[in-house]
Amino acid sequence: MGRLASLFAPDRVAVIGATDRSGSVGHAITSNLRDEFSGSVVPVNPNAGTVLGLDCYDDVQSVPGTVDVAIVVVPADIAVDAVTDCGEAGIDTVVVITAGFSEAGSEGAARERELRAVAEEYDLDLVGPNSLGVMSTAVGMNATFGPESAQPGPISFMSQSGAFITAVLDWANDRDIGFRDVVSLGNKAVLDESDFVAEWGDDPETDVILGYLEGIADGPSFIEAAREVTDDTPIVLVKSGRTEAGASAAASHTGTMAGSERAYEAGFDQAGVVRVDTVQELFDYAGILSGQPLPENDSVAVVTNAGGPGVMTTDAIGDTALSMASFTDGTLDALGEALPDGANIYNPIDVIGDADTERFAEAIDIALGDPNVGAAVVLACPTATLSFEELAAATVELQDEHGLPVAASLMGGDSTRAARAMLSEAGIPTYFDPARAVDSLDVLREYREIQACEYAAPTTFDVDRERAREILRAAADRNTNRLGVEAMDLLDAYGIPTPDGEVVDSPDAAREAAERVAGDAGEVVMKIVSPDILHKSDIGGVEVGVTPEAVRDTYEDLVARARNYQSDARVLGVQVQEQLPLDDATETIVGTNRDPQFGPLVLFGLGGIFVEVLEDTTVRVAPVSESEAASMVDDIESAPLLRGARGREPVAEDAIVETIQRLSQLVTDFPAILELDINPLVATPDGVRAVDVRLTIDKEEL
Amino acid sequence: MGRLASLFAPDRVAVIGATDRSGSVGHAITSNLRDEFSGSVVPVNPNAGTVLGLDCYDDVQSVPGTVDVAIVVVPADIAVDAVTDCGEAGIDTVVVITAGFSEAGSEGAARERELRAVAEEYDLDLVGPNSLGVMSTAVGMNATFGPESAQPGPISFMSQSGAFITAVLDWANDRDIGFRDVVSLGNKAVLDESDFVAEWGDDPETDVILGYLEGIADGPSFIEAAREVTDDTPIVLVKSGRTEAGASAAASHTGTMAGSERAYEAGFDQAGVVRVDTVQELFDYAGILSGQPLPENDSVAVVTNAGGPGVMTTDAIGDTALSMASFTDGTLDALGEALPDGANIYNPIDVIGDADTERFAEAIDIALGDPNVGAAVVLACPTATLSFEELAAATVELQDEHGLPVAASLMGGDSTRAARAMLSEAGIPTYFDPARAVDSLDVLREYREIQACEYAAPTTFDVDRERAREILRAAADRNTNRLGVEAMDLLDAYGIPTPDGEVVDSPDAAREAAERVAGDAGEVVMKIVSPDILHKSDIGGVEVGVTPEAVRDTYEDLVARARNYQSDARVLGVQVQEQLPLDDATETIVGTNRDPQFGPLVLFGLGGIFVEVLEDTTVRVAPVSESEAASMVDDIESAPLLRGARGREPVAEDAIVETIQRLSQLVTDFPAILELDINPLVATPDGVRAVDVRLTIDKEEL
Repeated sequence: MGRLASLFAPDRVAVIGATDRSGSVGHAITSNLRDEFSGSVVPVNPNAGTVLGLDCYDDVQSVPGTVDVAIVVVPADIAVDAVTDCGEAGIDTVVVITAGFSEAGSEGAARERELRAVAEEYDLDLVGPNSLGVMSTAVGMNATFGPESAQPGPISFMSQSGAFITAVLDWANDRDIGFRDVVSLGNKAVLDESDFVAEWGDDPETDVILGYLEGIADGPSFIEAAREVTDDTPIVLVKSGRTEAGASAAASHTGTMAGSERAYEAGFDQAGVVRVDTVQELFDYAGILSGQPLPENDSVAVVTNAGGPGVMTTDAIGDTALSMASFTDGTLDALGEALPDGANIYNPIDVIGDADTERFAEAIDIALGDPNVGAAVVLACPTATLSFEELAAATVELQDEHGLPVAASLMGGDSTRAARAMLSEAGIPTYFDPARAVDSLDVLREYREIQACEYAAPTTFDVDRERAREILRAAADRNTNRLGVEAMDLLDAYGIPTPDGEVVDSPDAAREAAERVAGDAGEVVMKIVSPDILHKSDIGGVEVGVTPEAVRDTYEDLVARARNYQSDARVLGVQVQEQLPLDDATETIVGTNRDPQFGPLVLFGLGGIFVEVLEDTTVRVAPVSESEAASMVDDIESAPLLRGARGREPVAEDAIVETIQRLSQLVTDFPAILELDINPLVATPDGVRAVDVRLTIDKEEL
Repeated sequence: MGRLASLFAPDRVAVIGATDRSGSVGHAITSNLRDEFSGSVVPVNPNAGTVLGLDCYDDVQSVPGTVDVAIVVVPADIAVDAVTDCGEAGIDTVVVITAGFSEAGSEGAARERELRAVAEEYDLDLVGPNSLGVMSTAVGMNATFGPESAQPGPISFMSQSGAFITAVLDWANDRDIGFRDVVSLGNKAVLDESDFVAEWGDDPETDVILGYLEGIADGPSFIEAAREVTDDTPIVLVKSGRTEAGASAAASHTGTMAGSERAYEAGFDQAGVVRVDTVQELFDYAGILSGQPLPENDSVAVVTNAGGPGVMTTDAIGDTALSMASFTDGTLDALGEALPDGANIYNPIDVIGDADTERFAEAIDIALGDPNVGAAVVLACPTATLSFEELAAATVELQDEHGLPVAASLMGGDSTRAARAMLSEAGIPTYFDPARAVDSLDVLREYREIQACEYAAPTTFDVDRERAREILRAAADRNTNRLGVEAMDLLDAYGIPTPDGEVVDSPDAAREAAERVAGDAGEVVMKIVSPDILHKSDIGGVEVGVTPEAVRDTYEDLVARARNYQSDARVLGVQVQEQLPLDDATETIVGTNRDPQFGPLVLFGLGGIFVEVLEDTTVRVAPVSESEAASMVDDIESAPLLRGARGREPVAEDAIVETIQRLSQLVTDFPAILELDINPLVATPDGVRAVDVRLTIDKEEL
């Protein structure tokens, strides 16, 4: 158990603002606590002698003995004082129900800053403010003002919406879905999703962590906390505000700016979170993750008494990363013996419409005994010869015996009710729609892969950090926040290969540089260098294939074009660069920008139309490990073009992967780098070279 | 009502094979009919005097008076005779329940051919064989051997799986989902999905046509039948065997080879069918399509008492083609007056947690009155102040008053039961998960678009069909089924532009041809012409930029390379072709192949990596109309590259669209063309030119 153990297993809870006034929040919480809490409840209210028959204290400091948790429900204007009193009284865990903080304008935001300061001063573990409260079924604690208490179970659940908790409990209680702990996160002034993920990861009684979030307070902390946990405990989250419309609705609801959806997507993926879009998925997946073992392989057996629904189930499997199991000869023989003519012994097994429970169960037994089978779907349509209850009983027994995950689809109405209850009791999910049964099995696969994931530390390359810092400072000294080709040295300092080249400030120097850098072909590339010219090509600021004789004139031309474009443009000179042979070369792009929640992101894709038209790019939250960098190359749809498609020689993929990591290290080392694009990073069979670079810095961060 | 009216509204039904033997199919059907059928039932069985107390006849010919429908349940070996007897007796509608036909090996397949011949001889409307039977709630007819009768309602339902019908009825009857007609299609020896689509399209009492299909017997007929119908009646289908695994399961289940999934996708789309993947979607969509009006625009208002679920709903809207409505100033003013401080008057409207029914309903009323709003989601979480029943009553009234479609999400458990029943009674779908409510509204949008679709006839271009036939015959005479560049003339005959060029058979002729076809640049392209060499480029069989001086030598080289590659390759000569200027040119590909169910398909995409690596192509069932051809260009992700992406001049898109149509006309005119690829079809701002073509013919079809 973690440091929040006392929040979820207190002996004594004080309600500050408890009252007998029916319909009030203080009354509802006190009443909920009194009804079921196994510990003791202490009402605090200077204007009452007793509340609900319990002795009431004027203030929390005058309560004798230890109070483990204080629930604060007093009006907003005295809530911070009430929390301070808790700190003074030595209470270290406080739940602030009171609203009127950052969700309520600038005055509220100021109040929340005060609250945070008090929490820091007294080192308080503080939930809220603007929270529905917390529940812990282990101690019968319902410290919320909602109408329903959770039933005991293996799911711990956090939600940034209190109403969603109320709705879920109303619904879950009618379905015998039980919870361990429930937290309404409120404004997350102190404790946030990362704290609860860590706490529940340490709690052996929590089998699944569920969450409804509208934002993540601190992306990197969340990734770290989640990775610690997902080895033992799956985390399933709805993060709303996914779409543009949703993000703007979330912003208006919580008052905070949403980060980029791509950052959330990457961050959740890197954290090992199972992300879902709908409430239905949230609870479907929680159910099977808490009820069934993980499959050892991705092959599924389908056993049915109806061919058509068997085909639908097979389609549903084809829609996932699961596959239809191929049975061993032994299995086929056994099925052939057990089943009548007309039955199908190949997967999906069709025991046909006249099957009784015995035949159906025998087929399930044989299928689950096949070493190729990782999981099974039991799929039954109503017939005169089959009893759903008997089938359910047999399925429960066989699932237990074989220890493989099973999901069921009983395709009927109320006639399946008793059977569904039996299966559900045994942790076997049951749906009318076989596609939902299959999707549930697929999430077991997903979680097994998450569990198997090794989170290697990012490689730390030997780089020249001091030189990089000097280059960034020099740019800052020039009073600019944009750097272009003059920042090639920055890449060089971090070991990212660049073509030979140099920035010069006269035609003669250009000629000398060209002699030095030109390869066998004798030709060079020349580019104008100016912080005021972002798109050099557009103004004729780039010349390729410049012969030695033409270097001087080209220098003059480039500068003239820059002046024509913008008469006061600061021209730092001209870059003279080795011209790379472009046969077998592919232009890629590696870039970075910063997300308000997750910090630096790294982007990879192919250049040109692939990034501009097809938007075929992928991102990760930095720092990225070697395997994460490698997975970025796998991610893009155009990856075959790097790997020898259409008879070309494959490029040096390892050099791309290393460049991604080195860039990740650079932007992690220097928070001053806001955006940086290497475009193109030319990849050839021999390696990569960063041909052009552009970056924006925040001088305040240097 | 169509020609199948007598199947669904008979006065008198004979059961051939009726029996008192409990547990038998003949008993079950007779019993089901006797219990509820409003007409009369006539048992036929030579071995029984009465069946279930009804007078029984020895054979159908001895039944006095008119029999409208005969249900045949006798054993397979006498089933065809029984059907013949029906024909002799003048019965024109027969349902064959008996199994043991094409689903059961070659003997069964032969029996089915006999059955089909008998049906043809007597012009029978025949359902099955291997069918569960048919139902018509209008006349209380349950002529199936399933355990459940359908309840009356507006949905007509056909299924290629009898078990699926049993399952659906068991489930639907507990949810008060009602049906008009139900048909178990069985093996579709005579009547198939197209017949029932046509019949139900003519039936004013059928509001929605639902189907579970594993295959379409005749794609073009189905498209034609569906298009006739979708103006009035939506068609929602699950077509299983979508995935590779599913298709192979379907093949083993029904014994028929599935056509290509891409053909089904295109065909259903062109037919105006709403295709769904899961049972849940099938009935969710049927519910709203039969219960709610169509929206006039795609903007949705969300009215809720809970911010978090409001954000989730907004996300769900963002996932569809719907959008969040922007309210008028009048609406915002009205909401501002109606709602308290802290409420959100912008969409999603948050009436906040303490709202009673009155406030909630007022907000719904205002939202539905906004001219920008096309539909609404009513989304409620349980609170102390809100009654779900009152909210449901108000929602039903307001939906009726405003006439806009509404879907509801009542986020609670059994506490919502009564409210759900009230909404459901009024045709308003209600789910726990708001995403399902939104998806339901989205299908109304989809159907509105289908309804608005004008199915223009394909353009018939003025072509030289005779010349095309001669070219194909000439190839056949050469004893080949593959044509390459020598088939350029075929394209020319159908008005598809080709570069100037000619096939020659000597170096001198090549030189002359080069002089004639070379453009200003003076250079030509030369290609080997051989039916035995499919990939000319791979063997060095194509040379570009051939100067006048090099033409003779190049001729010899190309022929030598062909001989080196395959010494007995038939070399028809060398094609000398005008070399097109490739600036501003984009290579596209237009092709065709044949699907066993849908006939010729037309394919379009960009050439090179786009087709080979990114698989960015789109298909349609031929013949395609102009608007369908135009939509193919819209479909591909790389379309921006044709439309001026990255500063290039847009290509002549209308020339591409015309080429697609002309190719469609060609393959429709000549069933002998099995496959044809124009690759590349070079598109420039000025037009298109087919630079290379390859085709395979079926000589039997010429």
